[in-house]
Amino acid sequence: MNPILPSARDKLLFTPGPLTTSLSVKQAMLHDAGSWHFEFHAIVKEIRLKLLAVAGVDAGEFDCVIMQGSGTFGVESVIGSTIPPNGKLLVLVNGAYGERILQMAQYLKIAHVAIRPGEDKTPTPEQVDAALAADPSITHVAMVHCETTTGIFNPPEEIGRVVSRRQRTLILDAMSSFGAVPVNCATANIDYLVSSANKCIEGVPGFAFVIARKSKLLACDGYARSLSLDLVAQAKYMEKTSQFRYTPPTHSILAFSQALKELELEGGIDARAARYQANHRTLLAGMRQLGFRSYLPPEVQSYIITSFYYPSDPKFTFM
Amino acid sequence: MNPILPSARDKLLFTPGPLTTSLSVKQAMLHDAGSWHFEFHAIVKEIRLKLLAVAGVDAGEFDCVIMQGSGTFGVESVIGSTIPPNGKLLVLVNGAYGERILQMAQYLKIAHVAIRPGEDKTPTPEQVDAALAADPSITHVAMVHCETTTGIFNPPEEIGRVVSRRQRTLILDAMSSFGAVPVNCATANIDYLVSSANKCIEGVPGFAFVIARKSKLLACDGYARSLSLDLVAQAKYMEKTSQFRYTPPTHSILAFSQALKELELEGGIDARAARYQANHRTLLAGMRQLGFRSYLPPEVQSYIITSFYYPSDPKFTFM
Repeated sequence: MNPILPSARDKLLFTPGPLTTSLSVKQAMLHDAGSWHFEFHAIVKEIRLKLLAVAGVDAGEFDCVIMQGSGTFGVESVIGSTIPPNGKLLVLVNGAYGERILQMAQYLKIAHVAIRPGEDKTPTPEQVDAALAADPSITHVAMVHCETTTGIFNPPEEIGRVVSRRQRTLILDAMSSFGAVPVNCATANIDYLVSSANKCIEGVPGFAFVIARKSKLLACDGYARSLSLDLVAQAKYMEKTSQFRYTPPTHSILAFSQALKELELEGGIDARAARYQANHRTLLAGMRQLGFRSYLPPEVQSYIITSFYYPSDPKFTFM
Repeated sequence: MNPILPSARDKLLFTPGPLTTSLSVKQAMLHDAGSWHFEFHAIVKEIRLKLLAVAGVDAGEFDCVIMQGSGTFGVESVIGSTIPPNGKLLVLVNGAYGERILQMAQYLKIAHVAIRPGEDKTPTPEQVDAALAADPSITHVAMVHCETTTGIFNPPEEIGRVVSRRQRTLILDAMSSFGAVPVNCATANIDYLVSSANKCIEGVPGFAFVIARKSKLLACDGYARSLSLDLVAQAKYMEKTSQFRYTPPTHSILAFSQALKELELEGGIDARAARYQANHRTLLAGMRQLGFRSYLPPEVQSYIITSFYYPSDPKFTFM
């Protein structure tokens, strides 16, 4: 047996954290890359352009900025860099990741308010519209696309329409959906979309990325509350030099470049969505046979993450 | 030829960023690890204990906290999490990385002051003692061990003695020295030492780590200015669960675990230091033959990074 191939004892990962990647994605990390070298810069540039395409947009109106760290670092880079000192954030919360955005606002001393429809319900456009009408000091709205707590799908398009009509800014945490759930940042009125390397694109962890509406991002100069997480400085430097301001996770980037090729080979987002949907149907059927029931009503149930409960003991849930 | 082996065309990396790693370090990334799995937790715990040993200390008095992102993220996590709201930071600056710490203080709105001896000189204990005597509001002192701009070695032991006697806190950016330059956090009176995965330990980039004096770190509850970079929360969570609060760069961690084994196999810090010193002598001799001269006087010249200039054109320097 080839000692450098993954052992047969390697676990398949079903956690909401990093997931199992292909051997070829991991093999892409068998090279060292110079973060100041033009060959590496070309890879970074290609990744950024491909991610814009996955978001349904191009480099005219939007930019793709990569941020070191986990997905949370990416979300915090948007919250901390794009909300002005006198801004106010409305967070639509129906799970742990919505709560986490509120926590960021607390740390960063940004004024904030929440709408909490409950963990099995999505916020409605009417609720958001009423909140924005009632409080003109709200400048930004943040929501999670697929909330990991339950797997609920929140509707960015419907909320985006309201937020855009009220001339506020929409931030979408699309961590666990981007790459397997079609989304168009332009038509859905999403100003900032955040996702990470190790979810539906099927790369390894190490960085997050932000699809940002250029006209809004570049107007945020001087707002950043952290040097490392300054999204505007990162965007400007990356655009000018194709480099990162600080050492990038070079091997994760190489793996991600390969993961994007494999997304294309599979047939793009629609084909990946179809595979995830088929897996989800198989899981649902099997869990039902075991006596479990879905926690969420089918109309808001995502095919990315699913929560179950066992009817004879409603407290026993399984994700 | 085995297609998964690095190609013969792979460059050797001499940048101050990520460096060339062994094939076996890269091969450790051919596995996916579950960040919530006990096998991964055991690896994280072992890494933290081994890093304490490299710092000459044990888990009684010190803790090792890993932080996602580049080295800069690690330094900012210390600056932003351990200086109280009314604290004041003295930075000893003789290059770009000292300036960067000042920049962090500016972003974080932390009062700060600098001593600038010049890029070819080290700050003296007398200068630091006078500054601390003159300004009782200074609570923290930050310095860079080996400053990448020139390769100058700053003396943590001498400065640590003064800072400790004046009962202030010392933060050491040991990014490019830790693992190849012997240091003892306890006897050198270093309260926080920061380094990263991809320098002298010879792992791949993806995270930084902090060797922190527990009694000081745990007294900093509530100071953090960022959720992602909250070093106290990260330390407490890691101690309790052996997990990261947010997705860790799992593959970089696996590579680092292997890199630490290879540091031991080489014979530890002293053996690695001897190899780097020999490489440095070879480089010096060759550059001198080409007509270059060292920028720094020999007594402050590190064996990690070296700056040269060409006497007929003093503006032409080569690092």
